[in-house]
Amino acid sequence: MLDKVLNAESVAIIGASKNKTKRGYQAIKTLLADGFEGDIYPVNPKEDRILGLKCYKDITQIEAPVNLALITTPARTIPGILRKCGEKKVSGAVIIAGGFRELGGKGKELEQEVVATAKETGVRLIGPNTSGMINLKSNMNLVGIQNAPRGNIALLCQSGNMALTLITEATIRKHEGFTYYVGVGNEADIKFHEYLEFFRNDPDTKSILMYVEGMSEGREFLQEAHKTSIKKPIVLLKSGRSATGKKSAGSHTGSLAGMSEVAKLAYERAGIIVIENSDELFPVAETLSSQPSIKNNSIAILADGGGHATIAADLLSDYGIHIPELSDKTKEKLKKILPEAASVVNPVDVAGGTDSDPSLFADCAKIIIKDPNVGGLLVVGLFGGYGIRFEKSLAIGEEAAAHRFGAMVKKRSKPIFVHSLYSSYESHALDLLRHYDIPVHDSLDISCKCVASLCKYGNYLKSYHAKTNFIFDWRAKAKKEGQKIIKNAKKEGRHVLLEHEAKQLIRLHGAPTSVGNLAQTEDEAWQFAKGIKENVVLKIVSPDILHKSDAQGVKLNLSSKKEIQKGFHQIVKNAKAYNPEAEIRGVLVAPMAQKGLEVIIGTKIDEQFGPVIMYGLGGIMVEIMKDVTFWVLPVSPTSSKKMLEDTRSSVLLDGVRGQKGYDKKSLRKLISMCSDLIESYPEIEEMDLNPVIVYEQGLDVVDARIILKK
Amino acid sequence: MLDKVLNAESVAIIGASKNKTKRGYQAIKTLLADGFEGDIYPVNPKEDRILGLKCYKDITQIEAPVNLALITTPARTIPGILRKCGEKKVSGAVIIAGGFRELGGKGKELEQEVVATAKETGVRLIGPNTSGMINLKSNMNLVGIQNAPRGNIALLCQSGNMALTLITEATIRKHEGFTYYVGVGNEADIKFHEYLEFFRNDPDTKSILMYVEGMSEGREFLQEAHKTSIKKPIVLLKSGRSATGKKSAGSHTGSLAGMSEVAKLAYERAGIIVIENSDELFPVAETLSSQPSIKNNSIAILADGGGHATIAADLLSDYGIHIPELSDKTKEKLKKILPEAASVVNPVDVAGGTDSDPSLFADCAKIIIKDPNVGGLLVVGLFGGYGIRFEKSLAIGEEAAAHRFGAMVKKRSKPIFVHSLYSSYESHALDLLRHYDIPVHDSLDISCKCVASLCKYGNYLKSYHAKTNFIFDWRAKAKKEGQKIIKNAKKEGRHVLLEHEAKQLIRLHGAPTSVGNLAQTEDEAWQFAKGIKENVVLKIVSPDILHKSDAQGVKLNLSSKKEIQKGFHQIVKNAKAYNPEAEIRGVLVAPMAQKGLEVIIGTKIDEQFGPVIMYGLGGIMVEIMKDVTFWVLPVSPTSSKKMLEDTRSSVLLDGVRGQKGYDKKSLRKLISMCSDLIESYPEIEEMDLNPVIVYEQGLDVVDARIILKK
Repeated sequence: MLDKVLNAESVAIIGASKNKTKRGYQAIKTLLADGFEGDIYPVNPKEDRILGLKCYKDITQIEAPVNLALITTPARTIPGILRKCGEKKVSGAVIIAGGFRELGGKGKELEQEVVATAKETGVRLIGPNTSGMINLKSNMNLVGIQNAPRGNIALLCQSGNMALTLITEATIRKHEGFTYYVGVGNEADIKFHEYLEFFRNDPDTKSILMYVEGMSEGREFLQEAHKTSIKKPIVLLKSGRSATGKKSAGSHTGSLAGMSEVAKLAYERAGIIVIENSDELFPVAETLSSQPSIKNNSIAILADGGGHATIAADLLSDYGIHIPELSDKTKEKLKKILPEAASVVNPVDVAGGTDSDPSLFADCAKIIIKDPNVGGLLVVGLFGGYGIRFEKSLAIGEEAAAHRFGAMVKKRSKPIFVHSLYSSYESHALDLLRHYDIPVHDSLDISCKCVASLCKYGNYLKSYHAKTNFIFDWRAKAKKEGQKIIKNAKKEGRHVLLEHEAKQLIRLHGAPTSVGNLAQTEDEAWQFAKGIKENVVLKIVSPDILHKSDAQGVKLNLSSKKEIQKGFHQIVKNAKAYNPEAEIRGVLVAPMAQKGLEVIIGTKIDEQFGPVIMYGLGGIMVEIMKDVTFWVLPVSPTSSKKMLEDTRSSVLLDGVRGQKGYDKKSLRKLISMCSDLIESYPEIEEMDLNPVIVYEQGLDVVDARIILKK
Repeated sequence: MLDKVLNAESVAIIGASKNKTKRGYQAIKTLLADGFEGDIYPVNPKEDRILGLKCYKDITQIEAPVNLALITTPARTIPGILRKCGEKKVSGAVIIAGGFRELGGKGKELEQEVVATAKETGVRLIGPNTSGMINLKSNMNLVGIQNAPRGNIALLCQSGNMALTLITEATIRKHEGFTYYVGVGNEADIKFHEYLEFFRNDPDTKSILMYVEGMSEGREFLQEAHKTSIKKPIVLLKSGRSATGKKSAGSHTGSLAGMSEVAKLAYERAGIIVIENSDELFPVAETLSSQPSIKNNSIAILADGGGHATIAADLLSDYGIHIPELSDKTKEKLKKILPEAASVVNPVDVAGGTDSDPSLFADCAKIIIKDPNVGGLLVVGLFGGYGIRFEKSLAIGEEAAAHRFGAMVKKRSKPIFVHSLYSSYESHALDLLRHYDIPVHDSLDISCKCVASLCKYGNYLKSYHAKTNFIFDWRAKAKKEGQKIIKNAKKEGRHVLLEHEAKQLIRLHGAPTSVGNLAQTEDEAWQFAKGIKENVVLKIVSPDILHKSDAQGVKLNLSSKKEIQKGFHQIVKNAKAYNPEAEIRGVLVAPMAQKGLEVIIGTKIDEQFGPVIMYGLGGIMVEIMKDVTFWVLPVSPTSSKKMLEDTRSSVLLDGVRGQKGYDKKSLRKLISMCSDLIESYPEIEEMDLNPVIVYEQGLDVVDARIILKK
């Protein structure tokens, strides 16, 4: 659908100019200089010819069909121009101008008008507030960044500066380049997920590199990402995670950065490789576009001497990658060709064995890479520099080794990486490795990160999540009685359900909870309490008191008539002292929960991803340890298992130190119930089940709070 | 003391050779080529002249005094040669050969012999198993790495590969270099801390860069590091933190890598800047050697457009650095010179304002750097590339700006950093910045890490730890009764104190704990229980049962006679079933502890740092959340405050959600008591107080275990 836009065969430049400092001049110049394979039509009512091309007064006057319009004129002119584009049946337009949503107020209104005009006319929009786009296959360069290298990475970027950074890095590394660059800008019309779909279907694109500050349709994006990442890897850096970063991102693209943990987990579950250091972004994308994924999360390290091998082992272990013991057969073979001082465990240390002939590296690599325990090989240290550092003639042995490395990776079954101090020197051996598509880095950190990303992608491809469908509409259904509870609250002008209402609602859907009884008098409280086997808890019920504890509106563990009557009296008194205006509905009398493991489950509507759920350890711990995990709803039964496993406290559920475990099955059921509830009742904005007490058998939702959308 | 060794004025090359492939030839060649300012004496019984220099049969035959011997001969020859060196009154020797401790067995014995010979003869040793050393001030290059750049960083390194890496990096960056390089090797004689002391006193050394795999005298090192870091910064990477990394480090230098958390915390408390990514090692050392520290942990960011600024703000926030709001005055001044679209909050975005004249960057910088909220400035993006990317003539404005940046940092009060995409391009403006000692990086990650290291160092210099003495001998004294307890256990051949013995010992030193009474019979248990107000706990006491719970040897919360008698019976039965050979000393009857906050305190003897203490949240949480901190003993009263603050759970101690806090004073007293105890009784190997229950007032050591050295 975006084909005519991103693969346009003819481009009109609206705002074409003869003034060399203007974008409308530079754009035509760049298209001509880069040798754009399609047709170029300058549009400017005041000119006849620009840079030797016929100039049109108006886009509608162009005789031939036009696929794409590059609009370089100011914000206010856009709606009028778009209408003309519609008339001409142009498929898409790139809007460079800023001055829209990112300014707020009138800018926001103008953007809405632009989007409405686009919808009306059928013209799809890239931007506004974008540096433009480049199709490197047809040399359609609508950005002005020169000499961007061609390759097989699609670049989807929400900052012109970051695009320039990544393209500059590719230019300096001289190895891998791009199929497309799209500056997403304000994402007013075409969304991230539409670009993603296009790149998934583009045969030349092998990996997708994204820089995101904020996205508007997160759910659709996750769905497309999931479909895409099983076919080709996506590498993404999401910025704006700090308060200050968000402020800066906000002023930049006019989109709000989302809760960073939610986003990161959601991306990863859709198979995206999430990057946090910008230095790693390009090398990882390059690696994933050219290397086979590592299937067994294991790597061997080959070094001459320590230091590098030790650091690499540290880093890889930090990433959770195994440095497996080599098989006896492998070790024996290595022993035969290496000096006595060498280490044939993993990391393998040739201990100077390569000093006289570096081609020994290839002999070792050939033995190691065949070991079934090993998923790939990382060579660290001086390879490629023996001829530089020691003796010129050693370069021959290095080149011979490089050719043999090349042969080893020809079948693309296990990747080989080379870290070399001499990466930025003139080294023919290293150039040969690059020729054979073997990644060469001078940074150990980057080498290890690239290895880790191949492991991560390999692990993902094997995972349950890669293989299942990614469904967002899970067709859970509301119950009439439930709708009545919500309707009643709304009728009363409330957007908060009272505790017993919330508990009734979740109970309707099968959540184990003791709703309790609402007592109006001391005596009634005692009557209810008498019918309860356990000691009881009393809690104030008032639509005006959201935080019961703050109002001293809770009494725990009462049993005698006297305690209960006194408790009732005290609670009501406290509530009135806390808020004299508060409407008191009564006091809830419920059984004290038994001891068990306290957990918390909450849902909210995330700005980017819609309904999300949080699960974690409850009690005071939740705030201190922040041992929580998030999931974009719905949660399938298998996903809820993964959610539990994603917390450090999951070992508590299993039972530690000889203790019995807790009822994970019921907990997972409760999580699924929450998932269903949120779809069934779209009126719900937020839900907090806190605490939920989990037992060896069963569980109890002790407190529940549901907030409705206003 | 090491002056004559590291600043030697005359060097003998033992093992000098005419064979070009031998180290004994290369060493002389390098000294001649580099223009060593001192005298060179080849020693080889078979040659008369080598490379034009007179060759001696024996070191004793050299007429003039010799300060340093470079020994290139094999391991087994070393003791004999050292004796000759002693005879000649040589101050030091560099031993290149491997084949010592790192091989274990006979290698270890040989190393011991070498060290003994050194002690005897008074010759100080660098190595063995080292790549050598370089004094760049006198061009005494005993390594063979050529063209190492001179500068003001001292490099102390335990891997020849890492030394080569760092020197190569310095060579490529062409800005900063070294005063000395020392390859520490097996650290058999001269230790890390002695080198550190030397570098502290070297007037040309401005910062010290260390790569450590393991060190033998950690406590002495910490003391020297503390003395050094208030005068000049130390930057350190400790490798071998992973199991595999340790294996690799172990096989390399023959030293054991220590507990990584203990080491990291100990280093940081001595003021060392600890680095985890090797890419950051050199840039951070370079920054610290040339830039003023940042005193207020705050930085301003200046950018043209978003992207970079957002990423930088994220990274700096992750490092705990403030991106403060600028003062109203600053904002007003900026508004006057920047376009309307610009952002004058922090990060400041010139929004294209520099497109026509990049010298505007200097105008902005001058305003921002004067803001009292701001401790330094980070310029991110394209500075230095406007002339490359847009229009050649813009380079003039960039150069003008660079000169003005230079003037701003002349007084070295607040540092300016420049991140530039064009760092690896030919840019005169960037060269000017380098000339003015302004750090220029093409990596945002590295730029931010360098900023963070200046903040960290600035924070340290202001801290309590920087200002106090660092005493390791704290003169705590044993008590006679305590010594009796230990003696008694030893007499019985035990190296574990029984629970009541351990409790008696700590109680002697003032720890609040209910020792309880040891009952031999059911009736005796009941008699003891009767005298206790609270419910009681029964615990088996046996030198053969270390883990009482595993043996089902504990009964909690008993009160009635029947319960207690039954409990006694059951516990003894369980213990016998668990270990029929176990010698049962009786059953401890102690009061049940009240509820409170469970914490754990433990001590052990660390291989590198001697006695260390651990404090953290107790109960099941300790294993899951690992919310613990370590301290090398002793712990001063102020340090114990810091220890509590270093855990995430410290907010619990202060009281959260309206709860009252816990008795931190008693807790700190207990920590100090442990510190004293460990010095007073050097027989103690490990001590575990777990759990310690802390109350609003007071605390209770509920269980104590003390293990003696074997």
